[in-house]
Amino acid sequence: MTRKILVINPNTSLSMTEDIKKSAEAARLPDTVMTYVNPPEGPESIETYLDEFLAAIGVLKIIAAERDNYDAFIIACGDDPGLFGAREITDKPVVSIGQAPMLLVPLMGRTFSILGTWCGDAPRSEDKVAKYGLLNLLASVVPSGEGVLGSHEDHAGLMDRLEEMGREAIEVNGAEVLITTCAGLAGVHSELSKRLHVPVLEGVTCAVKLAEIMVDLGLKTTRVGQYASIPQPKPLKGWPEFQHLEPFKVGKGKK
Amino acid sequence: MTRKILVINPNTSLSMTEDIKKSAEAARLPDTVMTYVNPPEGPESIETYLDEFLAAIGVLKIIAAERDNYDAFIIACGDDPGLFGAREITDKPVVSIGQAPMLLVPLMGRTFSILGTWCGDAPRSEDKVAKYGLLNLLASVVPSGEGVLGSHEDHAGLMDRLEEMGREAIEVNGAEVLITTCAGLAGVHSELSKRLHVPVLEGVTCAVKLAEIMVDLGLKTTRVGQYASIPQPKPLKGWPEFQHLEPFKVGKGKK
Amino acid sequence: MTRKILVINPNTSLSMTEDIKKSAEAARLPDTVMTYVNPPEGPESIETYLDEFLAAIGVLKIIAAERDNYDAFIIACGDDPGLFGAREITDKPVVSIGQAPMLLVPLMGRTFSILGTWCGDAPRSEDKVAKYGLLNLLASVVPSGEGVLGSHEDHAGLMDRLEEMGREAIEVNGAEVLITTCAGLAGVHSELSKRLHVPVLEGVTCAVKLAEIMVDLGLKTTRVGQYASIPQPKPLKGWPEFQHLEPFKVGKGKK
Amino acid sequence: MTRKILVINPNTSLSMTEDIKKSAEAARLPDTVMTYVNPPEGPESIETYLDEFLAAIGVLKIIAAERDNYDAFIIACGDDPGLFGAREITDKPVVSIGQAPMLLVPLMGRTFSILGTWCGDAPRSEDKVAKYGLLNLLASVVPSGEGVLGSHEDHAGLMDRLEEMGREAIEVNGAEVLITTCAGLAGVHSELSKRLHVPVLEGVTCAVKLAEIMVDLGLKTTRVGQYASIPQPKPLKGWPEFQHLEPFKVGKGKK
Amino acid sequence: MTRKILVINPNTSLSMTEDIKKSAEAARLPDTVMTYVNPPEGPESIETYLDEFLAAIGVLKIIAAERDNYDAFIIACGDDPGLFGAREITDKPVVSIGQAPMLLVPLMGRTFSILGTWCGDAPRSEDKVAKYGLLNLLASVVPSGEGVLGSHEDHAGLMDRLEEMGREAIEVNGAEVLITTCAGLAGVHSELSKRLHVPVLEGVTCAVKLAEIMVDLGLKTTRVGQYASIPQPKPLKGWPEFQHLEPFKVGKGKK
Amino acid sequence: MTRKILVINPNTSLSMTEDIKKSAEAARLPDTVMTYVNPPEGPESIETYLDEFLAAIGVLKIIAAERDNYDAFIIACGDDPGLFGAREITDKPVVSIGQAPMLLVPLMGRTFSILGTWCGDAPRSEDKVAKYGLLNLLASVVPSGEGVLGSHEDHAGLMDRLEEMGREAIEVNGAEVLITTCAGLAGVHSELSKRLHVPVLEGVTCAVKLAEIMVDLGLKTTRVGQYASIPQPKPLKGWPEFQHLEPFKVGKGKK
Repeated sequence: MTRKILVINPNTSLSMTEDIKKSAEAARLPDTVMTYVNPPEGPESIETYLDEFLAAIGVLKIIAAERDNYDAFIIACGDDPGLFGAREITDKPVVSIGQAPMLLVPLMGRTFSILGTWCGDAPRSEDKVAKYGLLNLLASVVPSGEGVLGSHEDHAGLMDRLEEMGREAIEVNGAEVLITTCAGLAGVHSELSKRLHVPVLEGVTCAVKLAEIMVDLGLKTTRVGQYASIPQPKPLKGWPEFQHLEPFKVGKGKK
Repeated sequence: MTRKILVINPNTSLSMTEDIKKSAEAARLPDTVMTYVNPPEGPESIETYLDEFLAAIGVLKIIAAERDNYDAFIIACGDDPGLFGAREITDKPVVSIGQAPMLLVPLMGRTFSILGTWCGDAPRSEDKVAKYGLLNLLASVVPSGEGVLGSHEDHAGLMDRLEEMGREAIEVNGAEVLITTCAGLAGVHSELSKRLHVPVLEGVTCAVKLAEIMVDLGLKTTRVGQYASIPQPKPLKGWPEFQHLEPFKVGKGKK
Repeated sequence: MTRKILVINPNTSLSMTEDIKKSAEAARLPDTVMTYVNPPEGPESIETYLDEFLAAIGVLKIIAAERDNYDAFIIACGDDPGLFGAREITDKPVVSIGQAPMLLVPLMGRTFSILGTWCGDAPRSEDKVAKYGLLNLLASVVPSGEGVLGSHEDHAGLMDRLEEMGREAIEVNGAEVLITTCAGLAGVHSELSKRLHVPVLEGVTCAVKLAEIMVDLGLKTTRVGQYASIPQPKPLKGWPEFQHLEPFKVGKGKK
Repeated sequence: MTRKILVINPNTSLSMTEDIKKSAEAARLPDTVMTYVNPPEGPESIETYLDEFLAAIGVLKIIAAERDNYDAFIIACGDDPGLFGAREITDKPVVSIGQAPMLLVPLMGRTFSILGTWCGDAPRSEDKVAKYGLLNLLASVVPSGEGVLGSHEDHAGLMDRLEEMGREAIEVNGAEVLITTCAGLAGVHSELSKRLHVPVLEGVTCAVKLAEIMVDLGLKTTRVGQYASIPQPKPLKGWPEFQHLEPFKVGKGKK
Repeated sequence: MTRKILVINPNTSLSMTEDIKKSAEAARLPDTVMTYVNPPEGPESIETYLDEFLAAIGVLKIIAAERDNYDAFIIACGDDPGLFGAREITDKPVVSIGQAPMLLVPLMGRTFSILGTWCGDAPRSEDKVAKYGLLNLLASVVPSGEGVLGSHEDHAGLMDRLEEMGREAIEVNGAEVLITTCAGLAGVHSELSKRLHVPVLEGVTCAVKLAEIMVDLGLKTTRVGQYASIPQPKPLKGWPEFQHLEPFKVGKGKK
Repeated sequence: MTRKILVINPNTSLSMTEDIKKSAEAARLPDTVMTYVNPPEGPESIETYLDEFLAAIGVLKIIAAERDNYDAFIIACGDDPGLFGAREITDKPVVSIGQAPMLLVPLMGRTFSILGTWCGDAPRSEDKVAKYGLLNLLASVVPSGEGVLGSHEDHAGLMDRLEEMGREAIEVNGAEVLITTCAGLAGVHSELSKRLHVPVLEGVTCAVKLAEIMVDLGLKTTRVGQYASIPQPKPLKGWPEFQHLEPFKVGKGKK
């Protein structure tokens, strides 16, 4: 059986969608078919809480429209915009590239650091880790400083800067595993891992594999506690995309 | 000096704005002038993560448009939709009625319970408390069960149900202070407090007083760490409301 | 209605009472009337756990004697001597300048550092923060080192030292908000805040505003859990000040 | 490329190995080849810390002997006997069925309960969860009471008992996801999940999928921090199985 | 060498001093000589934070006066009044019966409950456990309810009530070890332990043994961090007992 | 009454057993009789998780064979190999030199650091502290770096290295008490303590005193929760040492 997965780049940068696609295609199983999409509206990059709120809307609209057409959804931004809402509006698995890699950490070590792309990432990343109850595993978020990571042209310089960031995470903060969620870095993981003797997890790759697992095992979002509420038809002025969303069927139980 | 505060009801229910206004007007200082507003678009009530995401947009648009016209902003929903983003787009204090009352708890006792309006509130409230680093103070979130709290007509029945919920919070969960953030309950706090021998804090009231303090003391959102990023002009396709937002001036320092 | 608040400087240094008065008078609302008092006995400054125990007695005697004469009490020492006992012997709000500012932090940022006046402050301050359940918010306590802060005559030197302490808190410890509880520093907050781009909260100021709120909202100490016990007449050999204290009336409830 | 995975049942019960095989074969990808093995020595079942210590030796001997012959190893016991040692003696991924399912939980909900097979499981399971830094996610360990789960003959009775245990975990302890690690229960997960509206994760299944991911992504145990030490040749009187183990090569780095 | 230990009952009840003496004499080594003393002033029993503050003064005065005459000091009240101050004013070990037994718990099990003598004990005991950083080990504080424990005449009734409290601690709260700090209960521990299959630790007994250890090993309070400050001569109006206290000599180091 | 205690050095290094003996003999009470023993098989030193698993078997075999012949057992290795299993197979107290000293810390200060003998100690020590629920008290584990501690011949050099490690623990990590568990360091504690003004606890010494206390007070391992399971006769292929172990009698209770 073929798995159909929709990968959503929450920002409007098409070149980043291309980077995401490269990572995802390299990671998927042969019988997984992936589709890549951008929201038509939203920020070009996600650098603030405001950007996150705007990008979340783009993600949620896409999932609301496509929820019957795919077996799983991937939110391909390390800030996981819209994640908790997305799990309410579809019954299918929703995996996000910020959350996915940190779940694999205990298979390889006790702690992780996130190598971020700039300073503003750190507080928002820490907030996410706390929200997932995984703060005990977080060694640090190490930002790259002045935009070096943006430029992929100087490969040697990029590798040296990443090695320096990784070494700080390991030696100063006690990291045992490293994580990046910047799709543009997709080619560098195995090299960085060899230089530092630690696993380096890349977000898109991990999300693809975990989405495939969930499809194969038939795993779905819980409907008690956090995701007990699924959208019911009610007045949502100005949001026709969600207004007419029929509640999907939750298992009936016999209680 | 008169304080000008804008109170934003994040949902589109006008009757709830009226309830909020009653609470706020009773709590404000004589020389505070408050304005009450709804977003033109959004959910009628906030019951899911999806509703929160949609309501956040309404809140953020209002603050983006009005940020030069008020001394402080209040988000009048216990789920604090848009709070962290709002603190990025204005230099003025932003206080929210979910967060405000829990900050006062240690003045009166060690722990608090939130008397919620229905089951779906609990996980989202717990997520907020965790996000603010205050989980050590949380005894529980006690939902009301079958919509009794929606009806204010049977005052005696409402009081009995609230007393029962409060007693469970105190005796089973160890709460020492109670919090409600449903504006519709504004009239019942002192009666409930007398019945149970604990302080009962109401969100709107607490938010108004804390906003007044912030204005009077000239306190502003930090610009290091969590709120270091303020929106810069950049492509935000489809969001003209935020696109042209000029970054406000942050103190210069001499570093 | 006029609010009557008694401000207690727990040590016997009259010049410090003057400093406290300056801060408090600048912060109070026009219709708040404040009275300032020292215990006749006790340490001249509070630098050890022993000093705290002795100062607590001075505070408790004053509140026992004056509990019918004021609407609220402020303990004007950052070590909060006697705070939990004070909340037992009066039904009126008791606010302390160590605890008050840290409660406002989440309105502006995630974490705070306390700029202390000397090394011995740190462990006792950390113990207090832990006691209030707020250790998750504490970035550090930064002592001033060799008594520079004692001298206010060299204003420029004082500001430079404070800026250096604040910068260490922010850059090394991750503080997003700063707190001082030394009344002698009252004039420096806005300047320090501008230099560092973070809010700087001063204890006396925050305590005054929170005491006013509690009076205005009619908020009282809880009588379940932590403060369930109120002093009953019983043999207290050698402590006539507390011996004859009548228990105040706690609401009756109907249970 | 075919993945070769060795599945080790740490106890000496052959019928349990059969149960494990059934689960694993149903979960593996078509191009994964699995081999199943028991240690020749050790306890018939694992019910005490003593049993764990003995079973660990069996696991470690097998991995020491087979480490060049497989791409990954699975320890098929919910108590993860020998796990941390195993990750030292092989460079290949080692996944264990106690740890594996709890890592997937945040993809579906906030908290999990483990449905255990008897009372003695609970403290040892809690110790494991704490060791992995995941105590924040644990709602409870619910033992089955009097050996009902041992008997698979009364399917209806078994299902009713599991539903009752799951309902207690959900309603009393706040679980949002359930986990079982008893291979004998392999057939019941989807039925239980439908009855309770929560995902039910089975250990063997999850371990197989995570081992496949690790092989496919080339992920290996970290060699800084927790697993920095790999066995060096040194006197190990009485343990010839480990005595002559050559240290495998760890990447060299260029530091 | 004989050890000389001063046992201080912080309240003014002579009959309780007798109970303490019975416990201590049964626990001491043959070559330990113990002296028992009450402060001349203070509360007859310790039931509130206020009582604690008053009792602390009595304890501190005795230690200030006797610090050269004994090898160690025991504070014989489960609320540990004055403990942190006492460790500043003497260089000798100070052990307290609230803190002592909980330190032994991990030798026998993971968690403990304190069987208290009445409801008001619970919050103050919890505050102590938090202050010592041991909250992870605390299962609960179980108060006795209506003063049954005060009466020792009905031995069978007392035992039944204690067994009931212990069973609640074990079965509902998850306690693995029980603690009592009420000297009047000294005779009942081994009987209670046999009934419930858990160790039952009594405060006075544990404090005596730990004080003997500290004397025998020459262990002293740290002089960095928490107890870095030792009282220096300075104005202490109205407290002649502490005014003239010479600072004791702390090792010099060579830094 | 004489106390008979068996001290087990879990590795096969006889010279280390001699060092342990020196420490223990200096610490024991006159009427304590101690016996020292090595397992015939196992690693020469304990440097990895694998070593720990192998050493645990040696410890458990000795206790299984000797459990009727002694009043208490001491595991004389800072990694506490086999500790939890040992407490299952004997009814007598089992004290270990990794766990013992950290329990005494709160009698003297708030936090401790472990001065380790090499880098590989740190993660395994941290895992132990977490397992005992004492992570809040841990400041750091400071490894010695290049094997200086192995050589006792250069006493001055050893002392200087230890002082440097201790100073880092105190000044950088905030330690208030220091712990060593390397028996070879037994002679240096009082000198190190004087140099640094902090207590320095040595593992063997602390374990001896705590074992004596447990014998004198008749304290035994709990039989609810963590140690509820005691080995029952059952098939243990290849492990005759444990196969025929009769379950010891646990108190009967009357439930």
